[in-house]
Amino acid sequence: MREIFEAELTQLGDDLVAMARRVEVAITSAGRALLTADLPLAESVIADDLAIDAMDRELDERCVTLLARQQPVATDLRVIVSGLRIATTLERMGDLARHVAQITRRCYPERAVPEQTVDLVSEMGHAAERVAERTVRLLATRDLAVADDLERDDDHLDELHTASFAAQLGGTWTGTRQQGIDLTLLARYYERFGDHGVSVAGRIRYLVTGEWPDD
Amino acid sequence: MREIFEAELTQLGDDLVAMARRVEVAITSAGRALLTADLPLAESVIADDLAIDAMDRELDERCVTLLARQQPVATDLRVIVSGLRIATTLERMGDLARHVAQITRRCYPERAVPEQTVDLVSEMGHAAERVAERTVRLLATRDLAVADDLERDDDHLDELHTASFAAQLGGTWTGTRQQGIDLTLLARYYERFGDHGVSVAGRIRYLVTGEWPDD
Repeated sequence: MREIFEAELTQLGDDLVAMARRVEVAITSAGRALLTADLPLAESVIADDLAIDAMDRELDERCVTLLARQQPVATDLRVIVSGLRIATTLERMGDLARHVAQITRRCYPERAVPEQTVDLVSEMGHAAERVAERTVRLLATRDLAVADDLERDDDHLDELHTASFAAQLGGTWTGTRQQGIDLTLLARYYERFGDHGVSVAGRIRYLVTGEWPDD
Repeated sequence: MREIFEAELTQLGDDLVAMARRVEVAITSAGRALLTADLPLAESVIADDLAIDAMDRELDERCVTLLARQQPVATDLRVIVSGLRIATTLERMGDLARHVAQITRRCYPERAVPEQTVDLVSEMGHAAERVAERTVRLLATRDLAVADDLERDDDHLDELHTASFAAQLGGTWTGTRQQGIDLTLLARYYERFGDHGVSVAGRIRYLVTGEWPDD
């Protein structure tokens, strides 16, 4: 009985890693599609989000079934409840990648990002990719040094968020109003992506140490 | 034993209602502060969000304790897992009210909303208040007619979100770039508030019917 349960917990962990990998592909593709106005790639991100949503639903049901059948306590219980939470967070990260892709689609055949903010938006995309890559690694290894990295990535995305306002408010902004709206939304989506990375970091920290990080 | 457990489940439901009421006060105050550039009121929303976060943390711990101690199955398990989820959603709604208040604070002593979009933003605020009020009522009564209303409120907030883009892109827009950024963010916050209402509606629908609504 315990052996089966152990196997199920391992499977739960593996499935979270698989889900995080899908999110990594989504955010990487969404960033590339955005900067190259690549409609088919954007469409693939939008379509794949349904698969990420389905993984969330499935993980969710599995966690509830495990709670009902195994009646876990202590660490096992923490692992399952954290699994529920992390799946929800990954699902939100997938939504954000989809939102980026939807901006690409709406602007097509134009590129959503004007020349003057390509570097800034590109840096946001790379920072988000690092968040996704580290989220995969943290889930796979529970190495808390990676959790620290995720917090730094979030700080960096917050700075880029602030820089996106400065870019629009400075005298050199020549974008259209639509480009202004899109930059505001993109910066917000990427900034939220960082928050979700920190949320996963907090959950894993709690699993490993039993202590909840201070806000 | 069962009696104590029943009392704990009832308490869990009452605490969710109390938390939703705090969110209702927050979103109502945030909307009023925004349209009247009322700094003390905005500050109170920002400060109160800490209390909402604390309620989430506390409800969360209580749910995990109940899972560990009572080893619930079937409906009881669903009630507790849904409680975990709904608390997280209410916490996010509180964050959104705080974000609205933070825009008010940043713009003070100016009002963040220019005259020409006062009606639109006011309508967003009222729609969000209705979402909050109905979320309280749905949690208190589990009346699924209220869940239907929440879905309609969300549709309305989506329309207002679209209207916020049209307001900026139309020829009559005379706001500053900062006001454009703020309108884009406010519309996004309010639109998300509607999504969270729908999320609570889905959870309660699942509790009552056992069926998960199609996406």
